[in-house]
Amino acid sequence: MACPSFCTSSWAPRLPCFDGDSSSRFRGRNLSAGDLPPSLGATTQQPPKLRKHLVSPYDPRYKVWEIFLILLVVYSAWICPLEFAFLRYLPRAPFIVDDVVNGFFAVDIVLAFFVPYVDSKSYLLVDDPKKIAVRYLSSWFAFDVCSTFPFHSISLLFNRHEHSLGLKFLNALRLWRLRRVSSLFARLEKDIRFNYAVIRCTKLISVTLFAVHCAGCINYLIADRYPDPRRTWIGASMPDFREAGLWARYVTSLYWSITTMTTTGYGDLHAENTREMLFGIAYMLFNLWLTAYLIGNMTNLVVHSTSRTRDFRDMVQAASEFAARNQLPRQIEEQMLNHICLRFRTEGLKQQETLEILPKAMRASISLCLFFPVVQGSYLFKGVSTGFIQQLVTEMQAEY
Amino acid sequence: MACPSFCTSSWAPRLPCFDGDSSSRFRGRNLSAGDLPPSLGATTQQPPKLRKHLVSPYDPRYKVWEIFLILLVVYSAWICPLEFAFLRYLPRAPFIVDDVVNGFFAVDIVLAFFVPYVDSKSYLLVDDPKKIAVRYLSSWFAFDVCSTFPFHSISLLFNRHEHSLGLKFLNALRLWRLRRVSSLFARLEKDIRFNYAVIRCTKLISVTLFAVHCAGCINYLIADRYPDPRRTWIGASMPDFREAGLWARYVTSLYWSITTMTTTGYGDLHAENTREMLFGIAYMLFNLWLTAYLIGNMTNLVVHSTSRTRDFRDMVQAASEFAARNQLPRQIEEQMLNHICLRFRTEGLKQQETLEILPKAMRASISLCLFFPVVQGSYLFKGVSTGFIQQLVTEMQAEY
Amino acid sequence: MACPSFCTSSWAPRLPCFDGDSSSRFRGRNLSAGDLPPSLGATTQQPPKLRKHLVSPYDPRYKVWEIFLILLVVYSAWICPLEFAFLRYLPRAPFIVDDVVNGFFAVDIVLAFFVPYVDSKSYLLVDDPKKIAVRYLSSWFAFDVCSTFPFHSISLLFNRHEHSLGLKFLNALRLWRLRRVSSLFARLEKDIRFNYAVIRCTKLISVTLFAVHCAGCINYLIADRYPDPRRTWIGASMPDFREAGLWARYVTSLYWSITTMTTTGYGDLHAENTREMLFGIAYMLFNLWLTAYLIGNMTNLVVHSTSRTRDFRDMVQAASEFAARNQLPRQIEEQMLNHICLRFRTEGLKQQETLEILPKAMRASISLCLFFPVVQGSYLFKGVSTGFIQQLVTEMQAEY
Amino acid sequence: MACPSFCTSSWAPRLPCFDGDSSSRFRGRNLSAGDLPPSLGATTQQPPKLRKHLVSPYDPRYKVWEIFLILLVVYSAWICPLEFAFLRYLPRAPFIVDDVVNGFFAVDIVLAFFVPYVDSKSYLLVDDPKKIAVRYLSSWFAFDVCSTFPFHSISLLFNRHEHSLGLKFLNALRLWRLRRVSSLFARLEKDIRFNYAVIRCTKLISVTLFAVHCAGCINYLIADRYPDPRRTWIGASMPDFREAGLWARYVTSLYWSITTMTTTGYGDLHAENTREMLFGIAYMLFNLWLTAYLIGNMTNLVVHSTSRTRDFRDMVQAASEFAARNQLPRQIEEQMLNHICLRFRTEGLKQQETLEILPKAMRASISLCLFFPVVQGSYLFKGVSTGFIQQLVTEMQAEY
Repeated sequence: MACPSFCTSSWAPRLPCFDGDSSSRFRGRNLSAGDLPPSLGATTQQPPKLRKHLVSPYDPRYKVWEIFLILLVVYSAWICPLEFAFLRYLPRAPFIVDDVVNGFFAVDIVLAFFVPYVDSKSYLLVDDPKKIAVRYLSSWFAFDVCSTFPFHSISLLFNRHEHSLGLKFLNALRLWRLRRVSSLFARLEKDIRFNYAVIRCTKLISVTLFAVHCAGCINYLIADRYPDPRRTWIGASMPDFREAGLWARYVTSLYWSITTMTTTGYGDLHAENTREMLFGIAYMLFNLWLTAYLIGNMTNLVVHSTSRTRDFRDMVQAASEFAARNQLPRQIEEQMLNHICLRFRTEGLKQQETLEILPKAMRASISLCLFFPVVQGSYLFKGVSTGFIQQLVTEMQAEY
Repeated sequence: MACPSFCTSSWAPRLPCFDGDSSSRFRGRNLSAGDLPPSLGATTQQPPKLRKHLVSPYDPRYKVWEIFLILLVVYSAWICPLEFAFLRYLPRAPFIVDDVVNGFFAVDIVLAFFVPYVDSKSYLLVDDPKKIAVRYLSSWFAFDVCSTFPFHSISLLFNRHEHSLGLKFLNALRLWRLRRVSSLFARLEKDIRFNYAVIRCTKLISVTLFAVHCAGCINYLIADRYPDPRRTWIGASMPDFREAGLWARYVTSLYWSITTMTTTGYGDLHAENTREMLFGIAYMLFNLWLTAYLIGNMTNLVVHSTSRTRDFRDMVQAASEFAARNQLPRQIEEQMLNHICLRFRTEGLKQQETLEILPKAMRASISLCLFFPVVQGSYLFKGVSTGFIQQLVTEMQAEY
Repeated sequence: MACPSFCTSSWAPRLPCFDGDSSSRFRGRNLSAGDLPPSLGATTQQPPKLRKHLVSPYDPRYKVWEIFLILLVVYSAWICPLEFAFLRYLPRAPFIVDDVVNGFFAVDIVLAFFVPYVDSKSYLLVDDPKKIAVRYLSSWFAFDVCSTFPFHSISLLFNRHEHSLGLKFLNALRLWRLRRVSSLFARLEKDIRFNYAVIRCTKLISVTLFAVHCAGCINYLIADRYPDPRRTWIGASMPDFREAGLWARYVTSLYWSITTMTTTGYGDLHAENTREMLFGIAYMLFNLWLTAYLIGNMTNLVVHSTSRTRDFRDMVQAASEFAARNQLPRQIEEQMLNHICLRFRTEGLKQQETLEILPKAMRASISLCLFFPVVQGSYLFKGVSTGFIQQLVTEMQAEY
Repeated sequence: MACPSFCTSSWAPRLPCFDGDSSSRFRGRNLSAGDLPPSLGATTQQPPKLRKHLVSPYDPRYKVWEIFLILLVVYSAWICPLEFAFLRYLPRAPFIVDDVVNGFFAVDIVLAFFVPYVDSKSYLLVDDPKKIAVRYLSSWFAFDVCSTFPFHSISLLFNRHEHSLGLKFLNALRLWRLRRVSSLFARLEKDIRFNYAVIRCTKLISVTLFAVHCAGCINYLIADRYPDPRRTWIGASMPDFREAGLWARYVTSLYWSITTMTTTGYGDLHAENTREMLFGIAYMLFNLWLTAYLIGNMTNLVVHSTSRTRDFRDMVQAASEFAARNQLPRQIEEQMLNHICLRFRTEGLKQQETLEILPKAMRASISLCLFFPVVQGSYLFKGVSTGFIQQLVTEMQAEY
């Protein structure tokens, strides 16, 4: 088929960093090795060759490692605010788990020096170790190290019994790891193998749950540190809350948090002193925006998901009205409605527009595939030269 | 008229499962027997012939049976959570009604082996009894049997006085029947005989009412099973609630449920122990999403319902501005405005686009119907051959 | 100019109820006498001649009368729920005013027999007294009479001291008058002389205020009729509420109503008995929908009002990016941006589409007006026949 | 290049206030001196010459002065309601600062007579001092003077100890200055140098914070002036609130305000008397609209920001489905998907439409820039006259 070479020549002048002697194979790598494959679901491509000791970011084992780290991040996001607020009531176990988790992230920091990255301009995979190191050191290295450093265990070596607030804030640095989850969602949203609505809802639910969890923990910490336990939001209804079980206190914190977030505000738990009021003001303002953001996203998804049905109904109604007004015979009206139903079911109504965006050469080769065998076999075109049929066929348009 | 046969030939190559010798009548059955008729309101089509002992899904009597079952499902959806929560206070009557309802659903399970189904690929009605049985047994049969089995009555035969929690959960299986309502709404939404906004609102109201009812019942059950009645949400304000009437307890449960759902949260009834807090957290999170979903749908409906008026206003304003800027004479401006009003009232502004989606052959036959008599009768075309006029007329476009 | 006559002939075959000998003047009446004029702001048209004793619906004095009735409706909408709830505490004055208001509405019922109506099919003004009477008697006459009948005054003639609940419900029939407000808003929304957003917001605010007012009054009535005043929503915090002033009770009712409507739900006033709970459930469910409807409308208005600015920004950004990517010289880029700004400011970006909806004949006459003087005066076309220039000019398109 | 002059001639007849002998340079000033430059980010244009003693509104020093005034307005917006509510508890300092701030605004009033303005019709800068003065005196001069007049300091000169309510309302006139912030946001929204979503969110957050601040202050004032301190919203839970610190009272006011605004409504602070109920009713109604407006804006931003990703997904899906249905070879399918990805990444899918809005002459000169060197250098067109290539090239369209 003559088309691919034509495509190449027509694409070439527009592609940045295109050097004259690049073969078609090189361009193939250029495009397939960028961040396109994950977003297109093309998993069958052969991996590009890499220098020794480097780990391909498309290696399935590296993907498993990344997913494993994401799970650890989720654990960190849950345990971090909990340690922050309930540190003195927590058993020893989480701290040991913490150190193990830190170990995994330390391994990932080392690993980052051996994973090539995709250049954001040329969409090529850069496998020069120096460039990889420079890029990592100048971007997220410092943050990653800080969020992995075992401040807690080191402080325990020196003074075992004290839980300073400074230490807590250092531990909060672990939340930096959440950027991995954030970039994961950004990638998944563009990946057509996954349902957009599901990804988007999962993201919003995660944000909501994390906000509820954090706010509950912080609000408990404020009450825990307040000098007069009876003048705190939790102490007003549960005066001996510092002696209550961890579970009861955690659930109560979450309950206050979700009651405030959803603006239910029963009032059984409410701010009692200025500190709590200030935190409540900040949290409620945040919630106002989070709720608006949730509703905005939901509206977006609802509008998008119902657009197909609505378009179909509008079209059928317009056709019916047109037929009724012009008193078309019943037979033609039914044909119209059947045609609309058929189109709606088989392809959606925006098919044509999609094709029109493609360049001419590509549409020509599609037409060639679709109509050439049919036309060549038909009686009318017997004896006509192949070249003429090819020309003719590229001008044809599908009509149902 | 030559058009229908032409349509056939142009449609044919695209239709899946199309075999060469199929007559136009066969295609008629292919299309009309699918799920198109209900969505198009074409109730006058003759029913396709079926094998003996089979029940056509388009038989009006089967439709009545289906609607009757839907009513039973609505009853089940209401009584099920009520039994779940207030079982020990309920009189004997509902359990007898329950068994009768179960009987009807058992009949429907048997009936399902005699109702042909529409293949999702070929849109043909499959009336092979084996295929029907295989399809039903491999999909919903097990669930349907479980949701119909009279666990309660059988347990009463053995030990009459106990109401175990396990039995309650088995009874909750009846809610599986709700899938019928769900698929009913999915069908109604595509049926242009019904108003889309009304169907959508009814669906959302049903979901809201069911959620409110369920949450109220579950929350009551939690309070009812809590050891200390004074430390429950209902006992705090109504200490002797277990002796109160069923009506008072049910209304109070609903009141708490709706107060929480709408995030009003007066606070007169609120969680008092950890169990209730956990349920409250789950319910409030669910409400956050339900509310966002309600608002999203409402926005969708409002945007759609006002789009016609808004388009009209935009167009009139644009025309007025255009006339004012170019100092068009008043006469032309009024003509423009009158034309826009006329179009808006008679056909909507998207008429033309609807027609353009139809294939050429269909548009040609529409033009033929509309213009042939007029053109043939006009003085100018006296003496011209009919064929030429037909050709000419198919190229014409309506202009108002 | 040859255009108007051509327009007539091209329009004619589509217009329903068009009889052959109708002159252009008749069509003018056909269109201008329909409900177009109010929506187009064309107030200068001469009123069509009517039979004797009939009142034109376009007479300015009739419009004043209508606006006066709308004001009375607003008063009725406010006083009706108030009488319904606070009847026994109200002074005599409102009842006398009531009778006067009823008198005006009685006059309007008589007047309705003398006002021609616009036929919904032919858009012609029907001035046959018989048809007017038949139409009114068969539609709203009964309701109008019921809503005007002075039940209260008549009941006072017989038994002076009793305020039965039945009488109250009869008085509530006055709310039927609200249909006038509803149809007024429907008309205003299509009238381009008024800002769409303002009309829409006014409508929503009116609905909100009316709902708040009604709910407050009904809730008070429930408390007022409850046997134990201490077990009512208002009696719990204000035990001697039946002795309190009307103002305090009315404000408290409104306060409860708005607190519930906006889902603030402080909890200082909340349902105390089953009756109030049931009303609260109904009101909160209604509020859920009203709030969703408010938000849906607001979103609609915001999206529409910002669409112009957003389109402008999108276009400028696309142009900038295009220029940057293709390294266009700065001069061309600035020209592009200036052009977009100019277009955005002078006409909006959808101008062209508006014109394309007009029929060809109309566009031709617009082109004629715009370009004929320019072209005729230009050197190039000196000596060319007028007819040729007219032909040429109609094919021209404005280019900026 | 021949294009610019052609542009000029094609633009000219449409431009208002265009006189025959205007050179290209004059038009340049006409356009560049309007409010275009700030919205286009073209900061390199030479400033137009102005009469002596006049200050150009595009002078960087004037811009700094404007930004400085905006900061003062923000300070005024914060201090004004605070003075209004807590006047008698405030220290002397703010009043001195107040006078200084007033001084700056007085300077700006004088300055306003020396700043030319842009005529709203011709988009020309008017630098005639008389016209400037007439325009300012007839529009905002009176308001500006009233909002700058130091009522407080003057009243202190006469009677030192009294803080009349009238004086407070006079001070509230300062809020008139907020119109500057409002017009700043209106300008920023059209300025493509700033992110639209950020500007819009900042505006909404500012409005929210200002509303919360004002409502808190007003509600405190109502409680402060109520005769019985125990029957006020703040006195019910904090009986000696008039002796409490300013900070505690201010935070409590804000807390009530935000609790009501977000409809959380804990109920720990709630209206106790009719005055507070009336204010609460007004504030809650306002909040209903503000919340709907927030959500509407958020939805608008979310829909807009996700539209690119969604369009991309829709298109990829449509292409995949098309390929699957027509059983296109895998090679062509991948080409299609790669093309869509490439287009999506490099230019967005609406590029073509942007270009089509430009006038033909402009598109021709763009084509000339893009393709002329390529075509001239190609073998095929060797020896062809330059004029012919220019003609040819202008008809070309970019194809990727």
